[in-house]
Amino acid sequence: MITQNIHLHSRPEGLPSAENFKLVEVTLPELKEGEVLVENLWMSVDPYMRGRMIDRKSYIAPFQIGDVLEGGAIGKVIESKNDNLAVGTLVTHMMGWRKHFVSSAEPLTALPQTPYDPSYFLGVMGMPGMTAWTGLNRIANLKAGETLFVSAASGAVGSVACQLGKLMGAKVVGSVGSDEKADALRALGVDEVINYKTTDDLNAALAQAAPEGIDVYFENVGGEHLEAALNNMKDYGRIAVCGMIAQYNDTKPTPGPANLAQIIIKKLNIEGFIVFDHWEHYGEFTQQMGQWLAEGKIKVEQTVFEGLENAPDAFIGLFEGKNKGKMLVKL
Amino acid sequence: MITQNIHLHSRPEGLPSAENFKLVEVTLPELKEGEVLVENLWMSVDPYMRGRMIDRKSYIAPFQIGDVLEGGAIGKVIESKNDNLAVGTLVTHMMGWRKHFVSSAEPLTALPQTPYDPSYFLGVMGMPGMTAWTGLNRIANLKAGETLFVSAASGAVGSVACQLGKLMGAKVVGSVGSDEKADALRALGVDEVINYKTTDDLNAALAQAAPEGIDVYFENVGGEHLEAALNNMKDYGRIAVCGMIAQYNDTKPTPGPANLAQIIIKKLNIEGFIVFDHWEHYGEFTQQMGQWLAEGKIKVEQTVFEGLENAPDAFIGLFEGKNKGKMLVKL
Repeated sequence: MITQNIHLHSRPEGLPSAENFKLVEVTLPELKEGEVLVENLWMSVDPYMRGRMIDRKSYIAPFQIGDVLEGGAIGKVIESKNDNLAVGTLVTHMMGWRKHFVSSAEPLTALPQTPYDPSYFLGVMGMPGMTAWTGLNRIANLKAGETLFVSAASGAVGSVACQLGKLMGAKVVGSVGSDEKADALRALGVDEVINYKTTDDLNAALAQAAPEGIDVYFENVGGEHLEAALNNMKDYGRIAVCGMIAQYNDTKPTPGPANLAQIIIKKLNIEGFIVFDHWEHYGEFTQQMGQWLAEGKIKVEQTVFEGLENAPDAFIGLFEGKNKGKMLVKL
Repeated sequence: MITQNIHLHSRPEGLPSAENFKLVEVTLPELKEGEVLVENLWMSVDPYMRGRMIDRKSYIAPFQIGDVLEGGAIGKVIESKNDNLAVGTLVTHMMGWRKHFVSSAEPLTALPQTPYDPSYFLGVMGMPGMTAWTGLNRIANLKAGETLFVSAASGAVGSVACQLGKLMGAKVVGSVGSDEKADALRALGVDEVINYKTTDDLNAALAQAAPEGIDVYFENVGGEHLEAALNNMKDYGRIAVCGMIAQYNDTKPTPGPANLAQIIIKKLNIEGFIVFDHWEHYGEFTQQMGQWLAEGKIKVEQTVFEGLENAPDAFIGLFEGKNKGKMLVKL
């Protein structure tokens, strides 16, 4: 059969643009014994994919020019030569950026029966939700009564981190890039919201939002956000470093904060983490998250682009702040 | 009696200079019951004192203009109205920067009987030695077979950290600011030494010295040293942040490293610490260190200035790299 993929056409310099991507028609092979044909229903675009577009050593291999891109996706088995994966089975996997593909069973995980839309497994019940949970529980060890600051607070990870923070009994301060997002975040119960784009002095805004100081900073942004957080951390504060989206499109190195001596003065602990290192706890996470969802304690926000051909725009939109909650492409 | 103190005369801007200090004659009061008169024998100058000369909130209160400075010192009781502190007792305390002083017993700790010069209790057996030990054992958890990088490696803390690293079974890489210091460090058994002042590319020099990557960075310097270390850390590396001497005399904020995203890529842990938080382990430390000294496994290096009037020059010399090992003033 003939289907469509999106390939990396050229490496972006700075903010990615449409020319870096190419929609390609490909012919799929016949199924061999044990294989299945999957039709993708949803695919995820995530900020970390920008890092894979750079040709460098990292925790995950870079994308190669001319190759199909990869990323989290949800698909349905529409043809099967594997007894364990019947036609109709919903599967989660890393073969996003394509409409259909042929696969052995090994890279596919059948979705559990849940009352939620399968797309949740790309967001709140998937990698971004697990990232928020891991950062707060396993890296920063957030405790009830503490003050949590989350940057990119209306993003896929940030919006879950904010809500988990509230459920864990913390005061939560979030920063976002528009008044609309700020309103949405307040509606989720976040205590203090800063629109960093309309704030002259992020440092002062944070001091006003958290005069008691910050115990835990969930870092998604870097740059000025990190600098302001360092100035406002309490002694023995913890920073879980999940991302630094402000720098992902830098074409030349941007200097870091000038106030790193705060690490000594305040005896801070800063830890970078990758959610895949903690995947053995995914079952524990889905159990907790599933219960909170069932109880209506976590609200799910998604921004959806339709059609594979619009996946590049969805991806580029991540860096333009176009998403509230999880950015998804419906195929 | 009349004696001499050194007062903070003005707050330094940038590198401290002689005018920031003032030698003052003071008249000491008669001893009250329970008090002793102490004659100082040795006083310590340490980089952290520069921070106390800035009027800001930190882990220790700032020095006040017109007040006598403070710092670690060793003295001898020469007059006593306290039965527990006989004349002749050697004491360690924080009343440096003065020739004599009157004190109650409370701020004084009698030195244990040791075969070493009392000055060791301001260096290898005192705060700097304990800082090195704490950073490696309690913060970075250095293990045998790992690679340790120490900046300011010939300083009071660094020279002990290097030797402890070797005793703990690590490969040790040190950076220093002169060829003479480099030779001295090699003589202590340090595996690889970088003279950062004669190196064009610290990053490349570190990659050459530790091609296997760095497990633990003992951070004393900040700036370019931190940037080079981040680039050369292994996955899951640990950075114990003890000091950032490169920035202590900055008159305006100096931007931090541009490569902080390495914290995520390599899943690093960075922790600032203050030795006083770990002082309950001082007994454990002195027992270990005393044994290593007795066995000749730790070599002690000191740079000594003579006379209270030269204490400001000794202090300023810390930032000019004038010391090998512990910088001391003999009174």
